[in-house]
Amino acid sequence: MLNSRFILLVLGLLLVVEGVFMLLSAGIAALYNEYDLPYHLISSGICISIGGTIAGIFFKAPKDIGKREGYLVVTMVWVVFSIFGLLPFWLSGAIPSFTDAFFETISGFTTTGSSILNDIEALPHGLLFWRSLIQWLGGMGIIVLSLAILPLLGVGGMQMFVAEVPGPVPDKLHPRIKETAKRLYGIYVLFTLVEALLLVLGGMTPFDAICHSFTTMATGGYSTKQASIAYYDSSYLQYVMIFFMFLAGANFTLSFSALKGRFSKVIKDEEFQSYFGIVVGMSLVVAVVLYFTGGSEGIEQSVRDSLFQVVSIITTTGYATADYLLWAPFLSIIIFLLMFFGGSAGSTGGGIKIVRIVLLMKNSYYELKRLVHPNAVIPVRYNERAVGQGIITNVLAFIVIYMMIVGLSMIVMSMMGYSLDTSLGAVATSIGNIGPGLGEVGPASNFYNIPAFGKWFLSILMLIGRLEIFTVILIFSPYFWKE
Amino acid sequence: MLNSRFILLVLGLLLVVEGVFMLLSAGIAALYNEYDLPYHLISSGICISIGGTIAGIFFKAPKDIGKREGYLVVTMVWVVFSIFGLLPFWLSGAIPSFTDAFFETISGFTTTGSSILNDIEALPHGLLFWRSLIQWLGGMGIIVLSLAILPLLGVGGMQMFVAEVPGPVPDKLHPRIKETAKRLYGIYVLFTLVEALLLVLGGMTPFDAICHSFTTMATGGYSTKQASIAYYDSSYLQYVMIFFMFLAGANFTLSFSALKGRFSKVIKDEEFQSYFGIVVGMSLVVAVVLYFTGGSEGIEQSVRDSLFQVVSIITTTGYATADYLLWAPFLSIIIFLLMFFGGSAGSTGGGIKIVRIVLLMKNSYYELKRLVHPNAVIPVRYNERAVGQGIITNVLAFIVIYMMIVGLSMIVMSMMGYSLDTSLGAVATSIGNIGPGLGEVGPASNFYNIPAFGKWFLSILMLIGRLEIFTVILIFSPYFWKE
Ligand SMILES: [K+]
Ligand SMILES: [K+]
Repeated sequence: MLNSRFILLVLGLLLVVEGVFMLLSAGIAALYNEYDLPYHLISSGICISIGGTIAGIFFKAPKDIGKREGYLVVTMVWVVFSIFGLLPFWLSGAIPSFTDAFFETISGFTTTGSSILNDIEALPHGLLFWRSLIQWLGGMGIIVLSLAILPLLGVGGMQMFVAEVPGPVPDKLHPRIKETAKRLYGIYVLFTLVEALLLVLGGMTPFDAICHSFTTMATGGYSTKQASIAYYDSSYLQYVMIFFMFLAGANFTLSFSALKGRFSKVIKDEEFQSYFGIVVGMSLVVAVVLYFTGGSEGIEQSVRDSLFQVVSIITTTGYATADYLLWAPFLSIIIFLLMFFGGSAGSTGGGIKIVRIVLLMKNSYYELKRLVHPNAVIPVRYNERAVGQGIITNVLAFIVIYMMIVGLSMIVMSMMGYSLDTSLGAVATSIGNIGPGLGEVGPASNFYNIPAFGKWFLSILMLIGRLEIFTVILIFSPYFWKE
Repeated sequence: MLNSRFILLVLGLLLVVEGVFMLLSAGIAALYNEYDLPYHLISSGICISIGGTIAGIFFKAPKDIGKREGYLVVTMVWVVFSIFGLLPFWLSGAIPSFTDAFFETISGFTTTGSSILNDIEALPHGLLFWRSLIQWLGGMGIIVLSLAILPLLGVGGMQMFVAEVPGPVPDKLHPRIKETAKRLYGIYVLFTLVEALLLVLGGMTPFDAICHSFTTMATGGYSTKQASIAYYDSSYLQYVMIFFMFLAGANFTLSFSALKGRFSKVIKDEEFQSYFGIVVGMSLVVAVVLYFTGGSEGIEQSVRDSLFQVVSIITTTGYATADYLLWAPFLSIIIFLLMFFGGSAGSTGGGIKIVRIVLLMKNSYYELKRLVHPNAVIPVRYNERAVGQGIITNVLAFIVIYMMIVGLSMIVMSMMGYSLDTSLGAVATSIGNIGPGLGEVGPASNFYNIPAFGKWFLSILMLIGRLEIFTVILIFSPYFWKE
């Protein structure tokens, strides 16, 4: 039987946590003495009182949970966080439509960063801060966060961790789940602080620097400026962001190794090699073409614009310094295809993820071998270990289902009258947690004009993408509910 | 060591066969007493003399061949047939450009049906007949043809058959390979004759009826009219073609069963069930939307137009009665997505094929089961048999590689300045052997304006699609050539 009391306990506790974080943005609002202060406090009060009541009622719930509870908690916590997280935007009237407020919030928590705001600078500091903070909280994962700060959840932590961070190749760090969560958060906080400092040194205000380093490290992509990073006419700031976007899209476990001085581990990692290779290779191609087709001015700017855009899309951050839709079709199609790569496993990035692409390429090569030698058993190897057939099937199924969802969702978007490129772009950017799309939802535009149904639909896609598909599909399958 | 002498022997013999078939179109040219007669005879003479000489030289070649020779022969024979098959078009001056003539011919043999002709009706009857005949020959497969008529090839027939018709689930008929080939051809000829007869009864000229039944049964899609089937303002003719396109996209082995009265075998076949379900379901959806958005006039025409277009695309025939690009975006996107389905295994249709989609859907469901019960071993079942994990991996790898080729090829097309939908449409229709695409290569347009490089590139895609990807990729991989 489903242990629904434990699920409610967890949700209640986490809601309290969300309410506590809202006090941070209340603090910012107080600091700037702006009109949104009461709404942060009210929202926080709602979260803490409702969450606390539920947690209190179910405090004695049995703590043994299985896989099903894990998948359910994880999916529900993202929805609950978004529903309560929209309160400051909605109650304050900054985003009057409930649908819009939900879209903006789940787009934040899932680190998608697609926005419905037409005048971001009009928002008070407290709301801008909350908008960035939810990305930062979502970036490392809500469950990872809770494991790091709520020892109570250690019991079923493993089940939830796997449901939230399902990556195909098991990580050696899993067994010591709480240690892992704390370590990941340590690096996350460290990188965020360092980036913020470097941004301040480049002339950004401390407030904007904190907000941007939140959304960089989360590969979230929300900016405090309507024009995104293009607002800052500073190559220094852009290079700093390129570097930290790259870090955020890399495996945090590798960053931990690097910080410990074990660089050989980083260099030998096959996913990192591919990640680095794709970024450098694609940036080079884009830079050369961009230089000769005249989308940017001069060599340095061509290199910087292409590097920024390639890193921004492949890490699924989605910051914009240039409108790639104005580039040559060749370049915008490359940028579009990069939406299907995504960050590394164990990063804050979304998308299909590099490790799956690597396993896919390797298996394809082995399929060719098997055609000539059908009886030879040659397992795919990854980071010097043999990869089981089950993992390969899972990876391939993941990619195919990902593509199927993209295809079917295109149909849904086209029902609202959108053309092929707008439909495809909106869907690919939502499920990939990227932010900007193609056509009417390109980097120079936003999602304000999408009908309400479309906004809810894309919100679901963001969640499906964030939880790497299977978790969400699973709980909607009848099989899951069969005893 | 590679048995290259046997390869040359086979190619020589098949070239003679091609030359003999050219005499058929020479006969048509003689019948109509048109200017192209000598060019058919010259082309035939070239094929028979060159082919005969090569076959004569290597007649005593050792007959033992392995997988590698199988893959090589199959790929080369399609290229050789196209290079020599273009002679009547090129020598007669009907298609003055060698590139265009090659494109038109390989598009014919691979049953793609993308054309560069701006005035099809201007062609003499002999050339129109040849254009339809090459589709008919390519439809059932050149190797299947040769197995049916050249007993000599029986030795290595199995190797070549598998390379040309690789379908994921082994067919029980394989062992008696020559019998199978003859039986398939018997049904193919029978259906072609019956369709031609029915078309004549509907008022089509016998010449047009034969040409159209050739290209229907081959799921080729070449028409003798510039306006394709829209030229015939006859719902009877359209329904006849819908029926035979559907037959051509079904497994011919099942048609054989049906002709023997074993209907239960047809109804129980999982691929057929899905094929039928998709056709009916999608046609219904399209018909309803088409009726209400006003793309066609009246209920009957809405049903007929949608049925025709859905069947035409899913079977990869590519005939046009309506320009789906003028329909609502929702409908053109559905038509576009149908390009990724394709016909049944053992049919003349291209694309990913229904059986792979079925196995994909089943495996996806099992992946969800495995999430909850990771240790349960539950094989995917298809037509009441357990499907090995190797086949599942192969199917998934096929689909993913198919998508990867589509993605990379889009980049190549965009280098020539094409937009996303034109690039995507041209690529999807070429690798799927369908015919019409999107944007500038939609059903109301053709491929004449594509630059020469693009035509050669799309030709390769057609071949890759026709031979179901692995065969062609394999012979271009260094691994294949390693001893
Ligand atoms: K993002
Ligand atoms: K076709």
